[in-house]
Amino acid sequence: MGELTSLFRPQSVAVVGASRTPGKIGNAIVRNIIESGYRGSIYPINPREKEIEGLACYPAVSSVSGEVELAVLSVPAGRVLEAARECGEAGVKALIVVTAGFKEIGREGMELEKELVETCRTYGMRMLGPNCVGLMDASTPLNASFSSTFTTGGRIAFLSQSGAMLLAILDWSSSVGLGFNKVVSLGNKADLNEIDFIEDAANDDYTRVILCYIEDIVDGRRFLEVASEAARKKPVIVYKSGISQSGARAASSHTGALAGSDLAYETAFNDCGIIRAHSMTELFDLAVAFSRCISPKGDRVAIITNSGGPGIIATDNVELEGLHMARFEKETIEELRANLPGEASIYNPVDVLGDARSDRYKFALNKVMDDPNVDSVLVLMCPTAVTEAEETSRVIVEARDAHPDKPVLAAYTGGAKLAGGAEILSRAGIPCFTFPEPAVKCIKGLYNYGRYCQKQERKEEKLLDGIDRKTVKAIFYDVIKDKRLTLLGSEAAEVAMAYGIPAAPIVLATSPREAAEVAEKMGFPVVLKVASPRIQHKTDVGGVKIGLNSPEEVEKSFIEIMESVSHYLPGVPVYGIEVQKMMPRGTELIIGVTKDVQFGPLIAFGLGGIYVNLLKDVSFGLAQSLFDEQKIEEMIARTKAYSLLKGYRGEAPRDFPAVIDVIKRVARLSVDFPEITEMDINPVFAYEKGLSALDIKITIS
Amino acid sequence: MGELTSLFRPQSVAVVGASRTPGKIGNAIVRNIIESGYRGSIYPINPREKEIEGLACYPAVSSVSGEVELAVLSVPAGRVLEAARECGEAGVKALIVVTAGFKEIGREGMELEKELVETCRTYGMRMLGPNCVGLMDASTPLNASFSSTFTTGGRIAFLSQSGAMLLAILDWSSSVGLGFNKVVSLGNKADLNEIDFIEDAANDDYTRVILCYIEDIVDGRRFLEVASEAARKKPVIVYKSGISQSGARAASSHTGALAGSDLAYETAFNDCGIIRAHSMTELFDLAVAFSRCISPKGDRVAIITNSGGPGIIATDNVELEGLHMARFEKETIEELRANLPGEASIYNPVDVLGDARSDRYKFALNKVMDDPNVDSVLVLMCPTAVTEAEETSRVIVEARDAHPDKPVLAAYTGGAKLAGGAEILSRAGIPCFTFPEPAVKCIKGLYNYGRYCQKQERKEEKLLDGIDRKTVKAIFYDVIKDKRLTLLGSEAAEVAMAYGIPAAPIVLATSPREAAEVAEKMGFPVVLKVASPRIQHKTDVGGVKIGLNSPEEVEKSFIEIMESVSHYLPGVPVYGIEVQKMMPRGTELIIGVTKDVQFGPLIAFGLGGIYVNLLKDVSFGLAQSLFDEQKIEEMIARTKAYSLLKGYRGEAPRDFPAVIDVIKRVARLSVDFPEITEMDINPVFAYEKGLSALDIKITIS
Repeated sequence: MGELTSLFRPQSVAVVGASRTPGKIGNAIVRNIIESGYRGSIYPINPREKEIEGLACYPAVSSVSGEVELAVLSVPAGRVLEAARECGEAGVKALIVVTAGFKEIGREGMELEKELVETCRTYGMRMLGPNCVGLMDASTPLNASFSSTFTTGGRIAFLSQSGAMLLAILDWSSSVGLGFNKVVSLGNKADLNEIDFIEDAANDDYTRVILCYIEDIVDGRRFLEVASEAARKKPVIVYKSGISQSGARAASSHTGALAGSDLAYETAFNDCGIIRAHSMTELFDLAVAFSRCISPKGDRVAIITNSGGPGIIATDNVELEGLHMARFEKETIEELRANLPGEASIYNPVDVLGDARSDRYKFALNKVMDDPNVDSVLVLMCPTAVTEAEETSRVIVEARDAHPDKPVLAAYTGGAKLAGGAEILSRAGIPCFTFPEPAVKCIKGLYNYGRYCQKQERKEEKLLDGIDRKTVKAIFYDVIKDKRLTLLGSEAAEVAMAYGIPAAPIVLATSPREAAEVAEKMGFPVVLKVASPRIQHKTDVGGVKIGLNSPEEVEKSFIEIMESVSHYLPGVPVYGIEVQKMMPRGTELIIGVTKDVQFGPLIAFGLGGIYVNLLKDVSFGLAQSLFDEQKIEEMIARTKAYSLLKGYRGEAPRDFPAVIDVIKRVARLSVDFPEITEMDINPVFAYEKGLSALDIKITIS
Repeated sequence: MGELTSLFRPQSVAVVGASRTPGKIGNAIVRNIIESGYRGSIYPINPREKEIEGLACYPAVSSVSGEVELAVLSVPAGRVLEAARECGEAGVKALIVVTAGFKEIGREGMELEKELVETCRTYGMRMLGPNCVGLMDASTPLNASFSSTFTTGGRIAFLSQSGAMLLAILDWSSSVGLGFNKVVSLGNKADLNEIDFIEDAANDDYTRVILCYIEDIVDGRRFLEVASEAARKKPVIVYKSGISQSGARAASSHTGALAGSDLAYETAFNDCGIIRAHSMTELFDLAVAFSRCISPKGDRVAIITNSGGPGIIATDNVELEGLHMARFEKETIEELRANLPGEASIYNPVDVLGDARSDRYKFALNKVMDDPNVDSVLVLMCPTAVTEAEETSRVIVEARDAHPDKPVLAAYTGGAKLAGGAEILSRAGIPCFTFPEPAVKCIKGLYNYGRYCQKQERKEEKLLDGIDRKTVKAIFYDVIKDKRLTLLGSEAAEVAMAYGIPAAPIVLATSPREAAEVAEKMGFPVVLKVASPRIQHKTDVGGVKIGLNSPEEVEKSFIEIMESVSHYLPGVPVYGIEVQKMMPRGTELIIGVTKDVQFGPLIAFGLGGIYVNLLKDVSFGLAQSLFDEQKIEEMIARTKAYSLLKGYRGEAPRDFPAVIDVIKRVARLSVDFPEITEMDINPVFAYEKGLSALDIKITIS
C-alpha cells in the first residue's frame, strides 16, 4: 500500500464542509461514507451544525478529540486554503479536495492551486484534487466521493481524469455488472496524479488490472519509469484522449513533420508496455478480459461454434488481428471426427452444429484444449431450438478449470435465450461478449501483453566507444556565440563524427584555392555547397555544384557559386563554401530526432531521400530506450526500409549492425545534449559494408 | 413489390410437412404464421393429420380447394422434390424450402438442389432456400419461418446468409429494441439470392435501410448493377464475412500480388455506393443511424456536452474520422457567451457544464443548429446531480423537429440515470449511443453516403479513339497457337499500342545484323533483352544489356547474350532478342490488371518501379467503372503517386490527363478482352508532357 494508505484505508475521515441539506455535495459525501459501510470514525465538520446524518458534528478539525487521518474538503474555493491549513495543524495525513474553482478557471485559480499545494507540502499532507469527485475503495470499504453509486467491487483499479466520465462509468458499469476495487477521480492533479495511483495499484496485490482514462500526462519521465515498472507486474490499460488538442508540432525538419501530435504518447505507451485502448468500449472490453484471463502462451486460437456465420466472422478477425488459427494435432482431428456428427466441421473453427447440446460442446472443447497447438479458445454460441446455454456454460467453466494455462473467452450472440448462460460465464470469470469481434480483439490484447512480459529480461547495455562530448559541447558553444540555432553542414558533420556517426567528409573553405586543396585531400568527385545560415534553398540561388572532378573545376565552381549567390541574395552573409566528398549511392535512409515536451527526444528511422514525407515510412522510438538493441531492431522492423536492409528481392543485404549502431549513437547524442531540438540525417546511404551520413541538419535551442 | 409479392404478401400459405408435435419445425412454422397475425388463409398439409393448431389439415396441396400462393416446405430432403412438383401442379407461386441436406452436405445434395431449381423453373415458381429459416414481413404481417421471435417492426430490411446468425440477431435485437420490417434467411441461395431481395427492398417504399449479412456473392455483375441502383435510392449496409476464406489470389504479377483476397469486394462495394460495416456492432449502429437520420449536407459537426471528457473524446473522433469540427458564426458565439455561464466553453465543443439543466441544452442546441456552418450535431450527456435526462431529451427532439435538414445524434454515457432519457430519444427516432465514438462513426457513414448520392449525376462517356481490336485479336490468336499464355515484350507492346497506350518502341530481332538495323531506326541508346517464354529472370542469365549506343555495340551484345543464355540454359527455346529504345527517366508508375471471378477485371494504379511490392502504394478500381474520368481521378487520388503527378515539393507536375487516358485505355482493353488474366505495365514513366510504358507483361487464358 505505501504512502496512499491514508487515502484508501484511513482510520478516520473528516468531511470539512459537511451539510445537513440533502442534495448538497457536503451532505452526499457524509452519506456516501456511511452507506459504503466504512468502519473507521467519521467526523462531519461544520461550525453551524451539531449533528449530520446521525453523527456528531464538530466545529473544526482541531476540535475532534481523536486523530483525523483523511479529510475531504468540500468548502467554497475561497476557504480551501484555510481549511487545508487547519487540517495540517491537526495532523491530518491526506486531503481530498472536491471543491472546484482552481486551475481550470484560469490564472487566479492557478495561483490558489499553487498555494494549496504549498500548504500540503508544508504539513507533509498528500492531496487528491482539487476539482475532483473523490475516491472509492471497495475492500476498505470507503466511498469518499460525491458519487452515490458505490462500486460493486472487482479487481480493477479505475483512474479517471474526467470526473463526469467517472460518474457516468459508475452508473453504466453497475448496469452491465462490471466492478472496481478502487476508483479515483484525479481532478486537477495538483499534487497526486495518475503516476502515483498507478504505482500504488501496481503494488496492491488485490488489484489485477489498472485502468486509466487520461487526457494528459504531467511528468513524462516519471510516467515512463513507473508505468513500465507497473506493466511488468500487471496490465495497465489506458485510454488517452485529447489527440485533437495537442495541436501540430513544430515542423521545420522532416522528422518533426512526420511525428504527429499523438506520436509521443503512442511511442511512450508502446515502449513501457501499456495496453492502449482506442475507444471507451475497447477500454472496458479489455478490462473485463484482463481481469479474468491469463495471457495465452502463443497466438494460436481455436474456435468452437454451433453455427457457420459467427465462426467465419471470428476466423476473419483472428487473421485481421494478426493472430493464427490453431492447426490441430492429427489425434485431435481424428477424435473429433469419430465423436462429432458427420456434417460437423472438425478443423478449426470446429462447428459442432446447430443441434449441439452441451455434451457436444463439452467433448469438442476439452479435446481442443488438450491439443498442444492451441494457446487460447473462443467459444461461440447462437440460440437454436436445442441450445443448452446454461449447461454449456457450466461445461465451459469446467473445461477452463481443467486447463488453467489457456484462456477461454466466449461470444454468445443472442438476447434473452442466452442471457442465463452468459451470466454463468461472467460469474465464473469467463469474459462473454455478444459478438465475436471484441472477443478476438481481447485475445490479441492478452497475447500482446504476455509477449511484452516475456521480453522483459533486461539486457546488459553495451557501452558505446568513440564518444567525444567535449567537441560537441565546443561546437554548440560556438554556434550559440554566433547567435545561430542551426548548425552549418560542416559543423553538423563534426558533431556526428564526434559521436562516431559516419558522416561523409565535409569541410568549409573560404577561398577557391582552399576549396581545391580540400577537395584534392578528400578525393574526387566532390560537391560544393554555399555555407550560410540564411540560405535555406541553396539550389534555387545557384549555391550547389555537384560532380566536380578536378581542382580546376572546384576553383571555377567556387567563384561561380559566390557570384550567383551574391547576384540572387546581395548582402546575405556567406561563411564560405562547403566541400563534400560525393559518396556512392546506397539504400537511402533517414534517421532523425524530434523533441517531445513530456517524453524527451524521439528517434525516427525509415526510408530516406527526397520523398520521405510522401512515403512516410518512418517509425519512432524513445531515445532513452534505444540503447537496447532489441528495441532498435523492433523499431526498424516496423518500417518497409527493413526489407531493403535485409536484402529485398535477391538484392544483397545492407550492413544491419551498422544501422543499429548509428541509431544508438544518435539516441545517445540526443540524450546527452537536450539542447538538440531537431536533427535530420537524410539521406543516410546504407551499403553492404558500412554507412555514410550525407546531409545532416541539427537545430539547437 | 414486384415478383416477390407471393413471398412477402401472399393471399394464402400452405405448410407442407406441418406437424402437431410442439418443438418440431413443422409445428413451429404453422404456429408462427398464426401468431404473427397473418390475415390470409393458412393450410397445414399432412396426410396423417386432420387438424393442426386449430386449423383444418389437408392431405396434399392439391386437395386444398382454394388457391395456394405460397408454400413453406418442411419435409425431409428426400421428399422435397416431390412436394415441390405437387406445389407446381397446384399452381403455387412461390416456395420457401426450410429443409436442409442440399448443397451444404456435398455432391449428392448439390445434385438434388439442381433438380429442385429445375422443378421450380418448370412451374414458374420462385424459391427461397433451401436450408433456410424462412422469412418475415412485419407489415403483412407474416412470420413464415421457424423463428419464434417475430420482428417488432421497423423500417429496416434484414437479409442474412447465416440462419443461425439471423436467429441470434432476432433474439438480440428484441432485447435492444431494434426492429425490422422484413427479415430474410437466404439459405443456400439456390434460386433467389441477396440480389433479388436487395432489388425488392429498394423498390419497397416502406423500407428505409437495407441491411445484409453475406458470406459470398454469386453473380458479381448483377450484384453491381442492382446494388448501385438500390444504393441510389436508399442506404445498403453490408457486412461481408469470409475474408479469410477466399484464400490467396494467384500472384504471378505485381498487380495480382498487391490485390488482397478481400480487395475485389472492397472495390466493388466502394464502386456501387454500398456502406460496408466492419463488425456486427457497426452493422447495427449504422442500421439505427440510417433508419433514423438524414445525411448531413457537409462534414462540419457541432458537439454539445455537459462534461469535458466525452467532449474531448468526440472531438478526437471527429478528426480521426476525417470530419471537421464546425466553426460557428460570430453571432452564434456571442449569443452563447451572453447566455451561458462564464465557465462554459462556447466554442465547439460547446460545454454547457455539469450543472446544466434542460434549458441550457435547449438554448445551446437551437443556437448551434441555426448556425449555417453546422451540418450535423452530436449531443453528449453524463449523469450529474442535476441532469434532467428526460426533459433534455424532449428538448433535443424539438430542436431536431425544428431543424429537419440537420441530423442529430446523441451519446448518453451512463446507465439507469439516463435510461429514461435515452428511451425518449430512441422513440422519437434519434440514435442514442452509450459512448461518443460509435455516434461519430455513424455521422461519418451518413456523410459519406450523402456525398455518394450527390455524385450520382452520371456523366457522358467520352469515346476512346484509336482502338484497334483486330490487331489485338490477331496477336492473342498467334500466342495461343504458339501454346503460350504469356506474351513476349514486343507482342505486349503491340497490343498496348493497338489500344493507344504509348508503349516504348520494342522490336524482336533474330540476328545481330537485324538488331543493329532496328536499333539504328529507333535511335540510340537501346536495351537488348532475350526473348523467350521460358526465361523469367533475364538478368540472372546474362539476358539483358543496357545503354547500347552504336550498331557495333548492339551486334556484339546480341552475340554475347545468346552465348550467355545458351551457357546457363542450354536447350531453352529463344525467339530472338528484343531491341527496346531507352526512354528518359520519368516518374515511375504502375498500371495493371488483375481478374476477379465475381467482378471481372480490376485495374491497379500506383507508384511503380522495382519497389512496388514493398511500397504498396496502389489503389484499385473496377475496370467497368473506369470509363468515368472522375472515378479514375478518385482512384489516383487515393495513392501517394497522386502528389507526385500533381507536382511534389515544387517539382513540375506530370501529364495528368495522359495518365487518366492510359488508365481508361487499359480498362477498355481488359473489358474488351476477358481472356487477359493479368497485365502489368511497370514502370510507366510519366513526364511533364506524355507518358511512356516501358515494361509490359500480359498473360492470357
